[in-house]
Amino acid sequence: MVYSTITSEIIDHVMIVTLNRPERMNAFNEKMCAEMILAFDEADANDDVRAVIVTGSGASYCAGMDLEKGAETFMDHTPLVEYRDAGGVLALRIFELKKPIIAAINGAAVGVGITMTLPMDIRIASTEAKMGFVFARRGITMEACSGWFLPRLVGMGKASEWIYTGRMISANEAYEGRLVNKIVGPDELMAAAMEIASDIAQNTSSVSVTLSRQLMWTMLGANHPVESHKIESKMLHWTGKQADAQEGIEAFLEKRSADFKMKSSTDMPPFYPWSTDRTYESDKK
Amino acid sequence: MVYSTITSEIIDHVMIVTLNRPERMNAFNEKMCAEMILAFDEADANDDVRAVIVTGSGASYCAGMDLEKGAETFMDHTPLVEYRDAGGVLALRIFELKKPIIAAINGAAVGVGITMTLPMDIRIASTEAKMGFVFARRGITMEACSGWFLPRLVGMGKASEWIYTGRMISANEAYEGRLVNKIVGPDELMAAAMEIASDIAQNTSSVSVTLSRQLMWTMLGANHPVESHKIESKMLHWTGKQADAQEGIEAFLEKRSADFKMKSSTDMPPFYPWSTDRTYESDKK
Amino acid sequence: MVYSTITSEIIDHVMIVTLNRPERMNAFNEKMCAEMILAFDEADANDDVRAVIVTGSGASYCAGMDLEKGAETFMDHTPLVEYRDAGGVLALRIFELKKPIIAAINGAAVGVGITMTLPMDIRIASTEAKMGFVFARRGITMEACSGWFLPRLVGMGKASEWIYTGRMISANEAYEGRLVNKIVGPDELMAAAMEIASDIAQNTSSVSVTLSRQLMWTMLGANHPVESHKIESKMLHWTGKQADAQEGIEAFLEKRSADFKMKSSTDMPPFYPWSTDRTYESDKK
Repeated sequence: MVYSTITSEIIDHVMIVTLNRPERMNAFNEKMCAEMILAFDEADANDDVRAVIVTGSGASYCAGMDLEKGAETFMDHTPLVEYRDAGGVLALRIFELKKPIIAAINGAAVGVGITMTLPMDIRIASTEAKMGFVFARRGITMEACSGWFLPRLVGMGKASEWIYTGRMISANEAYEGRLVNKIVGPDELMAAAMEIASDIAQNTSSVSVTLSRQLMWTMLGANHPVESHKIESKMLHWTGKQADAQEGIEAFLEKRSADFKMKSSTDMPPFYPWSTDRTYESDKK
Repeated sequence: MVYSTITSEIIDHVMIVTLNRPERMNAFNEKMCAEMILAFDEADANDDVRAVIVTGSGASYCAGMDLEKGAETFMDHTPLVEYRDAGGVLALRIFELKKPIIAAINGAAVGVGITMTLPMDIRIASTEAKMGFVFARRGITMEACSGWFLPRLVGMGKASEWIYTGRMISANEAYEGRLVNKIVGPDELMAAAMEIASDIAQNTSSVSVTLSRQLMWTMLGANHPVESHKIESKMLHWTGKQADAQEGIEAFLEKRSADFKMKSSTDMPPFYPWSTDRTYESDKK
Repeated sequence: MVYSTITSEIIDHVMIVTLNRPERMNAFNEKMCAEMILAFDEADANDDVRAVIVTGSGASYCAGMDLEKGAETFMDHTPLVEYRDAGGVLALRIFELKKPIIAAINGAAVGVGITMTLPMDIRIASTEAKMGFVFARRGITMEACSGWFLPRLVGMGKASEWIYTGRMISANEAYEGRLVNKIVGPDELMAAAMEIASDIAQNTSSVSVTLSRQLMWTMLGANHPVESHKIESKMLHWTGKQADAQEGIEAFLEKRSADFKMKSSTDMPPFYPWSTDRTYESDKK
């Protein structure tokens, strides 16, 4: 696939999506939103992809919404009932991704540049990166479903401080506030992200990881652990009879590496996905 | 407004509410509850107030419910169906506040003295402060909606330990357990709280901050990120056409400070507040 | 009670449940599940038990599901509609426990060995313990309601990394990731767990602790703080008139230790338990 705002390549079973408008500090626009979704669609469909890493080209990760239209940037003439925040459309697509996704934040991540990373599973940052939830300083409001994701990720104390002031925060503050899992020197960033992605690609069952990803994100919004129990019981009852479980257990008992064959494109259980009634479209009815 | 249990003053766009019964270690009673709510009503109505700080007079923050009635303190003869925990009434009022609110915990914060701070956005403590969720040691139970707030703020591990033992915890333990955002020397406490409040007051759009505050607190209880997406889409569609967005973006592009004019008293969008069906009154029906 | 897979003893008002299949690294099986539930039933019924500690016999805590059946371990021939994950059955029992429960993780805690500790209130680990959410390396999926518990306990960032890679993690990484409250040398593990349990047993009202435990766990899944306010108002209205509140307040005012007499077997309020409509059985209808 040839893109104009991003690049995508697959290395050692990991899809690396690079935001690629370095002359605009990789600023986000509708085209980039659409192309990122296409790349994620490919990641889901391609069984050779076991994990996804998103990073930025050049010195920035993503400077936020492209402001080339100036004060008219957010003046959208779509009727309210049809208008959807592009960052949120992207976030919901990432939320439903089948593959683990890691943000490798190489530089400034501002506005949607940082909120787009919240539905990603893991954030790793360069020690030279800076983040800013700058919406309140631009007179607009937080987006990309960050109202849901951010307080769950960092707690209301830090979320409040960062959102209400809109100030820039250092990689170190982001790490201490648990926004990012890890900070490493700029030269080690991609290696650190690849280390986790490769561990997943080489050592785990794709179907198991896909089921677990969907389970955890949806359960984060569930009212009672029994909701998880009901799905987990189905999952265990089903996966326990599949080839990957046999291989995984035998490999473990024989003290050798497992060679998992099942594919998350075609080998998902009949009850996956278990929740389709929360989509925006069904909610609008 | 003249109060008898608190004082209230506005300095540099920040309302400072001081619990003011130092002879009783600022112990909480019904009068203080009512006066705090009046002060918060004023904070919401007064556009000169961009943030609120709550602190205590003298050496304590708040020693908890005033026990001057001894063993009869919690013997309330209101019928159960009409009885409402005063701490919870206060907490729900703070939950719906339009302005960011910071607890500056200057000394002992015990019982409702600490639980009243949980719906506040940010807690900063003096290194000499002590906190205690002492309910189980008094034979009563946790209140002020802390059953909802505390596990979300600090996780069940710390919440359990603090609630079940009821023991006093140091400022340092509170900081390491993420109950407070920051600890500073007693002489720097108000300056640290004012620094955050002033950053908000000087650099951000009041309407944006009010919308974000309500969004994050309500989304912390929402089942799916699409709930946030629906509200955020409305917020962005609406704010993007307002004067504050034009000013914010132009100021940013011109590398100058923004001068936001919109008021959270009169300039809120038609869809605010978006959730009024969760009030206690409607729930009782 | 005589058990074959665990031992149970009561010391200083604390029930110590020891997983006791050291020749199998205390691996979990249906018998152990049933016996743990029996022990927890006794803990709830016996007023002499004020807290529960779960630990392992020998060098391990629990090596996970016993794999003595090899690749057929998870091949269950129960019809799907009747199948229930045993780890989840155990987790839901712990979720509803009346007494605080502490995991003292003395060694390897793998698979269900670590997920069974998530509905426990507090986890303390030996510095020599290791944990692993290894499901994806065995071709099966996470269980024991960990889809609900884990992201709430450690955040999605760490939960994702640990679940998707399935790698072993050290006690120190578990502590830094907030999976465990505390790490101590192996010789101090039981003393550290007993210190918390004894503080609860000696200084707090049993009824208060039972109510608080149920409140916090259920409120962690509630959509709005008013849900907590409604229950807390009932709790405070009721406990405020009981003997424990009188004793607790008088003891505090007289600066002496309180001697609480109320029992969580017989002295619970009429509105406890307040939520019975979330059980698996009712949900299946």
